[in-house]
Amino acid sequence: MNPATPVAAPAPTTSTRSLPRTMKAVVKAAAGPGAEIRDLAVPACGATDLLLRVLRAGVCGTDLHIVEWDRWSQERLKPPVTLGHEFVGEIVERGAAVTEFQLGERVACESHIVCGHCVSCRTGNSHVCENTRILGVDVNGGFAAFVAVPAVNAWRVPANVPLEVAAVMEPLGNAVHTAFAGPISAHNLAVTGCGPIGLFAIGVARAAGAARVLASDVSPYRLELARRMNADAVVDPRTASFVERARELTGGRGLDGVLEMSGNPAAVRDGLAALRNGGRLSMLGLPHEPYALDWNRLVIFKGITIHGVIGRRMYETWYQMDNLLASGRLDVRPAITHVMKMERFLEAVELLRSGQAGKVVLVPWGESA
Amino acid sequence: MNPATPVAAPAPTTSTRSLPRTMKAVVKAAAGPGAEIRDLAVPACGATDLLLRVLRAGVCGTDLHIVEWDRWSQERLKPPVTLGHEFVGEIVERGAAVTEFQLGERVACESHIVCGHCVSCRTGNSHVCENTRILGVDVNGGFAAFVAVPAVNAWRVPANVPLEVAAVMEPLGNAVHTAFAGPISAHNLAVTGCGPIGLFAIGVARAAGAARVLASDVSPYRLELARRMNADAVVDPRTASFVERARELTGGRGLDGVLEMSGNPAAVRDGLAALRNGGRLSMLGLPHEPYALDWNRLVIFKGITIHGVIGRRMYETWYQMDNLLASGRLDVRPAITHVMKMERFLEAVELLRSGQAGKVVLVPWGESA
Amino acid sequence: MNPATPVAAPAPTTSTRSLPRTMKAVVKAAAGPGAEIRDLAVPACGATDLLLRVLRAGVCGTDLHIVEWDRWSQERLKPPVTLGHEFVGEIVERGAAVTEFQLGERVACESHIVCGHCVSCRTGNSHVCENTRILGVDVNGGFAAFVAVPAVNAWRVPANVPLEVAAVMEPLGNAVHTAFAGPISAHNLAVTGCGPIGLFAIGVARAAGAARVLASDVSPYRLELARRMNADAVVDPRTASFVERARELTGGRGLDGVLEMSGNPAAVRDGLAALRNGGRLSMLGLPHEPYALDWNRLVIFKGITIHGVIGRRMYETWYQMDNLLASGRLDVRPAITHVMKMERFLEAVELLRSGQAGKVVLVPWGESA
Amino acid sequence: MNPATPVAAPAPTTSTRSLPRTMKAVVKAAAGPGAEIRDLAVPACGATDLLLRVLRAGVCGTDLHIVEWDRWSQERLKPPVTLGHEFVGEIVERGAAVTEFQLGERVACESHIVCGHCVSCRTGNSHVCENTRILGVDVNGGFAAFVAVPAVNAWRVPANVPLEVAAVMEPLGNAVHTAFAGPISAHNLAVTGCGPIGLFAIGVARAAGAARVLASDVSPYRLELARRMNADAVVDPRTASFVERARELTGGRGLDGVLEMSGNPAAVRDGLAALRNGGRLSMLGLPHEPYALDWNRLVIFKGITIHGVIGRRMYETWYQMDNLLASGRLDVRPAITHVMKMERFLEAVELLRSGQAGKVVLVPWGESA
Repeated sequence: MNPATPVAAPAPTTSTRSLPRTMKAVVKAAAGPGAEIRDLAVPACGATDLLLRVLRAGVCGTDLHIVEWDRWSQERLKPPVTLGHEFVGEIVERGAAVTEFQLGERVACESHIVCGHCVSCRTGNSHVCENTRILGVDVNGGFAAFVAVPAVNAWRVPANVPLEVAAVMEPLGNAVHTAFAGPISAHNLAVTGCGPIGLFAIGVARAAGAARVLASDVSPYRLELARRMNADAVVDPRTASFVERARELTGGRGLDGVLEMSGNPAAVRDGLAALRNGGRLSMLGLPHEPYALDWNRLVIFKGITIHGVIGRRMYETWYQMDNLLASGRLDVRPAITHVMKMERFLEAVELLRSGQAGKVVLVPWGESA
Repeated sequence: MNPATPVAAPAPTTSTRSLPRTMKAVVKAAAGPGAEIRDLAVPACGATDLLLRVLRAGVCGTDLHIVEWDRWSQERLKPPVTLGHEFVGEIVERGAAVTEFQLGERVACESHIVCGHCVSCRTGNSHVCENTRILGVDVNGGFAAFVAVPAVNAWRVPANVPLEVAAVMEPLGNAVHTAFAGPISAHNLAVTGCGPIGLFAIGVARAAGAARVLASDVSPYRLELARRMNADAVVDPRTASFVERARELTGGRGLDGVLEMSGNPAAVRDGLAALRNGGRLSMLGLPHEPYALDWNRLVIFKGITIHGVIGRRMYETWYQMDNLLASGRLDVRPAITHVMKMERFLEAVELLRSGQAGKVVLVPWGESA
Repeated sequence: MNPATPVAAPAPTTSTRSLPRTMKAVVKAAAGPGAEIRDLAVPACGATDLLLRVLRAGVCGTDLHIVEWDRWSQERLKPPVTLGHEFVGEIVERGAAVTEFQLGERVACESHIVCGHCVSCRTGNSHVCENTRILGVDVNGGFAAFVAVPAVNAWRVPANVPLEVAAVMEPLGNAVHTAFAGPISAHNLAVTGCGPIGLFAIGVARAAGAARVLASDVSPYRLELARRMNADAVVDPRTASFVERARELTGGRGLDGVLEMSGNPAAVRDGLAALRNGGRLSMLGLPHEPYALDWNRLVIFKGITIHGVIGRRMYETWYQMDNLLASGRLDVRPAITHVMKMERFLEAVELLRSGQAGKVVLVPWGESA
Repeated sequence: MNPATPVAAPAPTTSTRSLPRTMKAVVKAAAGPGAEIRDLAVPACGATDLLLRVLRAGVCGTDLHIVEWDRWSQERLKPPVTLGHEFVGEIVERGAAVTEFQLGERVACESHIVCGHCVSCRTGNSHVCENTRILGVDVNGGFAAFVAVPAVNAWRVPANVPLEVAAVMEPLGNAVHTAFAGPISAHNLAVTGCGPIGLFAIGVARAAGAARVLASDVSPYRLELARRMNADAVVDPRTASFVERARELTGGRGLDGVLEMSGNPAAVRDGLAALRNGGRLSMLGLPHEPYALDWNRLVIFKGITIHGVIGRRMYETWYQMDNLLASGRLDVRPAITHVMKMERFLEAVELLRSGQAGKVVLVPWGESA
């Protein structure tokens, strides 16, 4: 049966135990910079929802933008909203129409709540649904003791996956989606930009069968993390030529693919220049503003394919990620550099701004790390 | 919002007008051969369902098997069940949780009701859902004045599509799915087996850009219909060599693809033999029993790809079909040879058995053709 | 045997008849603007070459650039060189190592002479060979009474293809390659830029099974040709919104693909904006200079794929083109607006510059149109 | 320039040193069982050939069939012919038209000599060339001190690859081709049949990013080798259920793909049954005779894709293999169980027949292991 399948009589929701009525949460309370910790009602669990006790949550670059209240945030958010779109939780309540999950199961969450009706959704491309609402952005998210999510968005966490890894399956899925946008097996790939998703992408490319992975970033701290994620080579494009390094690594052939995670125009140009003819550049990193390319030389004459990548394929990406994690091929723990209490969210934001962190994972109120 | 999205309070369903409480339907009433016309209650419309007034319905080979009560039917059906999995209807009632459709709209229906949970469903392959229930087979179908269907299964019929064509979008979707299982554009294809789906496939291949389409069947009646569907050449393999005909049509190169609609072992072997090396055979026709291939000569040495095809990709196939029909590129009317009253269902079955019919469309009680 | 296969003893080349020793040709004689008609020796036919008597030749935008002596020409050409990279000829002499062709056969020519050794060539991507030399650019071409070409570059012209069409199979192949860079069948496509290759692309998209084709250009003359090539709709983006027109044509869904033939930044931006999420833009048109995109909004958030396209896949594109032409599905004659004597080459260049021409075909000395 | 490019004057071939005039070779001297060691003239090096001093050669199952003089051999071979289609050699002479290689380089060899003219060759599918001649089968091969091969068939061996591995790149390429016939990354695959190519395929699947690899065979000896090649699980289908084992390994989902290396009908049926719906079975193993499938249950209802696989993609497979080997991701040495003098060829054949060997590599006369 479909999660949507009607039930004869709307049964009461099922719950393991008596839940509190209020909880703490990290909330964007009003338009303007900042975020605060508030007491809120524990969310209601709709008929097709799951209510989760949050076990761990990841902090994303998007959360920084929301705290900063940048232009995108101003246009998109309607405060008040509970932040947090990367998390793992335990099911404590199950909507009346949900048949798939059991109370007590641990689930990670796809953050995109999609419409199911648009041409994207109807043709297997829900990741670019025209009506996407995002948990922790458009809808209350997981920086809280509890969060309600559509059951269809929940993904059962494989037994061997540690909580801090389960917490970051959402951004890990971005890395998987980007890597799997083109061939990986036996290909020589580069990852440009070694923030958390770039670091994840190094591990994904290796686990998914890339022959060699070159990583680039301008931060020595991040390049060290790239090495720990088993990049075959790393390069700081300020001090060495990315294109040269790529040719060296590939016996002069050039890269087969670039996973672009930086949004930096120079990284994109370098990536395109370092590709062999016929290669692909898969682009997840968001630039701050429009930028130009020498299309003839970098794209057309070389027969390059450029992929715009967003979100995660629903749910093929999750299946791929599940397999990589459950098989033990992929370990992203070197990229998770900090675990801290959720109440220290603003400290986590500062830490990320400093550039001296990979992924930061938060432990909600009442949970122990 | 998703069709599954919960509503605050289960609102009453919406209906255009007062509906009758009973209706006529073609029913498999009990285990054993036959089918009968019965008075039944008009189906209830669940929260995520649509109730349709049936406007036209198509008769399928599967319906013949069910009437015959063959082995497959004996194992699969749990009478009583209303037959009919190909139909178009007008929405007369809308479940409380349905937001997408309006009363009065005309919709065709995907006949596979899928679970949404299995690995197939979760990875964009719902057409091979492990828990599929089929309208008119496992669940009451559309050989009736009214039918209730999950809203997610409904496809709005393009304005220019005549009712009898809308009625057969389900089997037309089989043809589209088979054709689109491999490349079509500029390829030389054959359709082996010119029953209704084979006839549709000829039209689909032509409209979707095949360079040339060869059709084969052992019935002169069906070959004549194949010609009307614009096959570039037809062949009766009892009186001429399929392989020779294929070589002739392709300047000696061999076919690029075969759309196998017959389930006939000789047709499959001929099809494989007529393929160029590296070609594809996409197989929708169901054989009566297992059969052998000379794998080395016909498949391995030639580097052939064989696709097993079932159902329709949900809903990419519908989108493709919609575009082909709405653009006017595809006209399947030559394959629809008979339109008759639904009360004459058993006559329709006899007609189909005689081999002197293409697709037969039924007009329900109260509708005029 | 391979065209490269050595022969026991280097036999003399085979020739149908006594050939003249000199011929007329359109030559870029020296660095600087212009081109002139000269008397040259008839080319020698190497062991793996064919010598062709040129029957018809097409004038390309690249020829205009060479006459103008633009920056690209200055960097690329080493005069003297005989121009002309689009042509059809009759085989009059066959190199000693050539076994495949017969004297008297009519062949069109792939203009890219490739190395066969680089990673592109060795992995089926010769169209982006790192060492490509182009007939009529790097090597003497076909604006002459005779031309010598590698036998491997020759493509036997299907019997039903008129000479003026055979003459332009090279640029037609560009259109085919661009269209076939992504799905065509049942897709709604646009062609931006209705120069000769854009016009061909309209015909190709239609013949290869596109559901609907929208064409855009700023020239009423070219839009009229687009209509004659059976575009379903045309739009002049100076007077109407391309994006609106695309939505209208597709029932609000947006385009599935754009075949970009203009090199115009506004056309690219419009094309990307008009794509549905997940669509593709295949880019053959060369811009004059680098230009910027709003990557986030136009590419990344929409999950768009951009293909850089150059040349023709060797020789899959030719096989596709052959099938489309030989089957009669594709007729590009409406795009061929002028046929004139080769000695009037500079007039042809002026005509093309005026914008009042589609494709111009030249008839060499000694041939009659 | 193409290997085929003519040279102005047929220059003398280039050679490093004075070569002997005769050599020893393993020859199928006449129709009938057996093979013998003979003294032959060192082969001549044609204009587009390389002459190799053979360094190592692999024995293949096909060689056993030729020694046995089975039906296939009787139909195919025209004795006398020097056997051996898997080998690595050092270039000692270079044909006059060859520009790519240097004397002294080590090259492995694609064994398929293809025509370059048929539709397969012209569309990037030379591995199914209609006119293939095979080294050591149709043309003198590498079980000899020297062998002449077309330069286009030579692949420069990466520096880090040991000689015995270089010797078996040809069958390793079969394994790569089979694995790469469908998705590998993050997929759960099985290899049915653990002869040398099956063993290689285990290593390839792991190196190319499979999540888990299940191996099956009926020989404990081979299953032990499968373990050494890092299969995640092994199963003897005589003592345990392959389907059950596959479900266990995949958390109940079923396999994503099967690499079929046995030619055994039961293995194919098991493999199909163990696939998840929508999975793929890529079939390289050759059955002894035609066999039947329950197509409905095993292929059509499940939406399975079956690939017939032969040879190696020319030369994409070699590029993939090169990357896997040169990067150190793939080590196939555990599958190479014996290295012996070439003069002991018939002993090697017996050893292989006993089933107590993986791949056997031969050391030619004059070489030391």
